[in-house]
Amino acid sequence: MAVVLITGGARSGKSQRAEARARSFPGRPVYIATAEALDAEMAERIARHRARRGDDWIERETPLDLVAALDATDGSGARLVDCLTLWLSNLLHAERDWSGEAALLAAALRRQRSPVILVTNEVGLGIVPDNALARSFRDAAGLLNQVIAEVADEVEFVVAGLPMKVK
Amino acid sequence: MAVVLITGGARSGKSQRAEARARSFPGRPVYIATAEALDAEMAERIARHRARRGDDWIERETPLDLVAALDATDGSGARLVDCLTLWLSNLLHAERDWSGEAALLAAALRRQRSPVILVTNEVGLGIVPDNALARSFRDAAGLLNQVIAEVADEVEFVVAGLPMKVK
Amino acid sequence: MAVVLITGGARSGKSQRAEARARSFPGRPVYIATAEALDAEMAERIARHRARRGDDWIERETPLDLVAALDATDGSGARLVDCLTLWLSNLLHAERDWSGEAALLAAALRRQRSPVILVTNEVGLGIVPDNALARSFRDAAGLLNQVIAEVADEVEFVVAGLPMKVK
Repeated sequence: MAVVLITGGARSGKSQRAEARARSFPGRPVYIATAEALDAEMAERIARHRARRGDDWIERETPLDLVAALDATDGSGARLVDCLTLWLSNLLHAERDWSGEAALLAAALRRQRSPVILVTNEVGLGIVPDNALARSFRDAAGLLNQVIAEVADEVEFVVAGLPMKVK
Repeated sequence: MAVVLITGGARSGKSQRAEARARSFPGRPVYIATAEALDAEMAERIARHRARRGDDWIERETPLDLVAALDATDGSGARLVDCLTLWLSNLLHAERDWSGEAALLAAALRRQRSPVILVTNEVGLGIVPDNALARSFRDAAGLLNQVIAEVADEVEFVVAGLPMKVK
Repeated sequence: MAVVLITGGARSGKSQRAEARARSFPGRPVYIATAEALDAEMAERIARHRARRGDDWIERETPLDLVAALDATDGSGARLVDCLTLWLSNLLHAERDWSGEAALLAAALRRQRSPVILVTNEVGLGIVPDNALARSFRDAAGLLNQVIAEVADEVEFVVAGLPMKVK
């Protein structure tokens, strides 16, 4: 069993690094997308990621029910969850209790038998945002990262496409 | 003697890491807060930090006169200064010469006999802010971090609750 | 031959670190500035950097044609390019194909005989910007950093004036 958290900034190469880590485990890898193609920018991004990954992945779309998706795909290849920050955003839009869901996710990660690679974003290293919603989002994102990092066996911080070992 | 600088993004777990470092030294730890409970968001944050720390800390509130607070508490347990970025913000609002004060703080840190753990923020890793005030604040925050890191014996960059060794 | 990429946030001490690296190589160092003194803020910054560096540098100003500047100065001391993020911004303003230019730069770096130290910025670690232009700029900046990091022999991430080894 292995839980690996890959964090970093926008376009730092996190997804690509996570794909390489997922492929390094035996079995057919599973791609669990939290993104939904709600606008052109996102659709284009999803298409680009898919083209890069290739056809050999099992694909799941799970904007909210990450725990169910992990439990349902456990037992063979590695699962790549891309990404936690979007999952958090989806939970907030759906007015779900993100903090309770984060605890459930941490518990689910502890019981997985096949590896899980999770991609997340660092969003708290800029100037304090003007609006309260953005401030509370970045607070939640930071706390979520801490909760998942605590149960992870490895944490990597990706800079310019290169992983730095954090844990 | 030890001067330890703990830096990182918002909600990266900096304060919790700094508390653990402060407790690891002998003697009753001293919490030197630069925050003032001027609004509900800040009051809630201060209360949360206090609840986590517990009752065994000596507490000081020092929005501006950090050097005096350090000199006055020197000689027993470790001092935890939380945080430098807010101190900078307080100095700017009070129209004090932050750069001169930073040099005085660096000099004061060199003469302390009991340990000092300082928390600060990385605010310069986002997109360039639109407004000139935010740009000059992030410049000042970056320069302040450099000045204090230079006199520090150790510098840690906290990501997702985990420390990365910088110095 | 050595290609060194120095990345980090605003006022993290990247330029100063890059200057030290450039001076550590034999021969008279060459400063290749991508900045133009178009406003007072930038003119002041350029003047400050020049005062710190001293008089012994050969200076070039190259808002766009970085490859030509590198080829023209190859063969003696180290070249310091400060910085790639501004170069990207100049390319976008000039409506040049930044992605094609980035590939040409990577190819040019591979053929240099004298060392090249390149300064760049991390701009993707804050909250997602509201406006689409800022989002696409930070995407391009992140991708450019990945392309150059791939051909670099060393990559450093500077925090509070201190280098962390990435590659």
